Amino acid sequence: MAAGSESPWLVEDDIGAVRWLTLSRPGQRNALSSHMIAALQQGLDAATADPAVRCIVLAGSGSVFSAGHDLHEMKAQPDETDIAAKQRMGDILKACSAMMLSINACPKAVIACVPGIATAAGCQLVAACDLAVASTEARFCLPGVNIGAFCTTPLVAVGRTVHRKHAMEMALTGDMFSADEAMRMGLVNRTVPADTLHSVTAQLAAGIAGKSAEGIRRGKQAFYQQIDMPLEQAYAFTCEPMIETMTTEEAHEGVAAFFGKRTPVWPESQD
Amino acid sequence: MAAGSESPWLVEDDIGAVRWLTLSRPGQRNALSSHMIAALQQGLDAATADPAVRCIVLAGSGSVFSAGHDLHEMKAQPDETDIAAKQRMGDILKACSAMMLSINACPKAVIACVPGIATAAGCQLVAACDLAVASTEARFCLPGVNIGAFCTTPLVAVGRTVHRKHAMEMALTGDMFSADEAMRMGLVNRTVPADTLHSVTAQLAAGIAGKSAEGIRRGKQAFYQQIDMPLEQAYAFTCEPMIETMTTEEAHEGVAAFFGKRTPVWPESQD
Amino acid sequence: MAAGSESPWLVEDDIGAVRWLTLSRPGQRNALSSHMIAALQQGLDAATADPAVRCIVLAGSGSVFSAGHDLHEMKAQPDETDIAAKQRMGDILKACSAMMLSINACPKAVIACVPGIATAAGCQLVAACDLAVASTEARFCLPGVNIGAFCTTPLVAVGRTVHRKHAMEMALTGDMFSADEAMRMGLVNRTVPADTLHSVTAQLAAGIAGKSAEGIRRGKQAFYQQIDMPLEQAYAFTCEPMIETMTTEEAHEGVAAFFGKRTPVWPESQD
Repeated sequence: MAAGSESPWLVEDDIGAVRWLTLSRPGQRNALSSHMIAALQQGLDAATADPAVRCIVLAGSGSVFSAGHDLHEMKAQPDETDIAAKQRMGDILKACSAMMLSINACPKAVIACVPGIATAAGCQLVAACDLAVASTEARFCLPGVNIGAFCTTPLVAVGRTVHRKHAMEMALTGDMFSADEAMRMGLVNRTVPADTLHSVTAQLAAGIAGKSAEGIRRGKQAFYQQIDMPLEQAYAFTCEPMIETMTTEEAHEGVAAFFGKRTPVWPESQD
Repeated sequence: MAAGSESPWLVEDDIGAVRWLTLSRPGQRNALSSHMIAALQQGLDAATADPAVRCIVLAGSGSVFSAGHDLHEMKAQPDETDIAAKQRMGDILKACSAMMLSINACPKAVIACVPGIATAAGCQLVAACDLAVASTEARFCLPGVNIGAFCTTPLVAVGRTVHRKHAMEMALTGDMFSADEAMRMGLVNRTVPADTLHSVTAQLAAGIAGKSAEGIRRGKQAFYQQIDMPLEQAYAFTCEPMIETMTTEEAHEGVAAFFGKRTPVWPESQD
Repeated sequence: MAAGSESPWLVEDDIGAVRWLTLSRPGQRNALSSHMIAALQQGLDAATADPAVRCIVLAGSGSVFSAGHDLHEMKAQPDETDIAAKQRMGDILKACSAMMLSINACPKAVIACVPGIATAAGCQLVAACDLAVASTEARFCLPGVNIGAFCTTPLVAVGRTVHRKHAMEMALTGDMFSADEAMRMGLVNRTVPADTLHSVTAQLAAGIAGKSAEGIRRGKQAFYQQIDMPLEQAYAFTCEPMIETMTTEEAHEGVAAFFGKRTPVWPESQD
């Protein structure tokens, strides 16, 4: 905990209404250590609470997105009983899952900006985001199987993002997959040359930040709720959030602007 | 309701055993107004009930498929209380969801034939159909976010048709997506040059109309029921419909024709 | 049952730690007759129980993978009442579903190696495997609709492997789909020239056989369990198997090897 405690784990920058959260331990390949998980949780919570933030980008410093859990932490320590180790590792995993779930629960769009490797829980983090932009040099991997384990929790997010055979191919082989393969599988939305990664992501984020915050808030939440329901129940469930979304001040302005053939001017977000 | 009430909202044509239902308000971009929803419901119900119809095509007149809900309807009217507006819009939404669900429940294959833009609930209509053929000039969009709202109910159908990140990209950006992109995402089955759209769709529909109506009736229904179940339950559930399908008169004839190396002659549909 | 009863339905070969199970009735297009289903069940059970086996390949002899159920069996026999026929066919279907489910439940990776046609329940068998490698000459088809029936049970596996519109396109048209199309849809992981099919599959299988058996055992089981759960429940569920996987002897060795920059040496499998 000593080394590097002076510099923040997560660098926060605002570009207009977009909050950039940049994992900043490239020397540790931006591992999702318990410190980094806590920093991400805090960063996501703060961005969620801040009404000036209308879109969030999760980025990796240097040429790495994240290499997943810190293996120094995810093994029994010399002085630890088996039960104590499992308890401690379970606490890290639960904090990690809670952080991933807060991306889905976040009322603002969260975009992964992936410059390089995204492996294990780092790959899960890409999958958990609403959208992902990757450098053509990015690489994706579920390597748990290479170290005697298995990327069981990463597959919760990856398995809901890509087809089953693709998820199993990643987890069973432990192989590195290219950005093109990630694109083909649906793990990322766009691949761009490394030198345009930040500008393309910034443009995508700015576009979303210019949209209705109220619409995104209600609509994103409803999406992740209904997608786990049977079809008929999903339709019944979405009726109310749809109506609520259509009758906000923002929708009133948006529809008026549409008919007036002008750009809408959103009222302040109500959160 | 006055303007254009003389011409039908939905034009019905039979080509062989294929019922074409063509949305015919190109001047209103074939909006899914309450009139159009009612016309579609009626058209689907009639095609479902008619034993001579063995396959259904939903098409758009002119160069438009459908631009989704009629925004004139989906906002509070000058003389309306907030509660009354929500009630009225909720009724439209419920009628729209019921119409979409009746596509899934329809015992006949329903094919979307998409000449041009399919946006919002119009894009949902494409997603709700069993199959979709699109002109290379077609465009797809979930633009709710552009007018202060969100395509929450369209995502029920779109989110079950394509990968999650693709669904969210459409809904969060509000951008237009090309036919090629729709093809890549799995939103449509085929893209063809505009001038062959009708002939290719007609050929696909005629092929399906020449198959077993009994098999499709039971099998399509079972598909949409089992796909929402856990795997083991899905296998248990499909056993009976599979056996029922294998022991109809049509299957008896189909298997006999198969062994006789001849074209099967289906008995009259039993509906 | 007489013809060919001298030769095994399923040829079993071990290449290193990989068990090859080869359907060996090419003259009957490797149909999933009740004999073949029983042979596959037995072969899968034996491979599951044998600690020397670390990966399983399902292959087809000759240029066929499998043409699905034996239609001679899946129709009423001359001397059979309708009830007796349904009972007997139901028993075959249940045995087939149980065999398919045992692929998911198998603690070892199961790879389909597809040289040629995989139709109906044969296509289902490809979908049910964790991974699939196909020759570029392979063809895929859900032809039930061509014989008056419908591939209702095959769609349980296929519908969970590819997008809905692709599954419905296969089932409603009964058309043959190429290996390229199967690749595009996500039905197979790789397509390779026919003359390299066995070597590529063998290499993929050997790679997986060299990974952690314990990790795969727990992780694969957890994958198919969690994928049917709502997101939050899935995260809660996977916590324990993930911790269990991270604290096995294999993981201990794997992590030590990782830090020691050496190849891990797995302890004997504990099953």
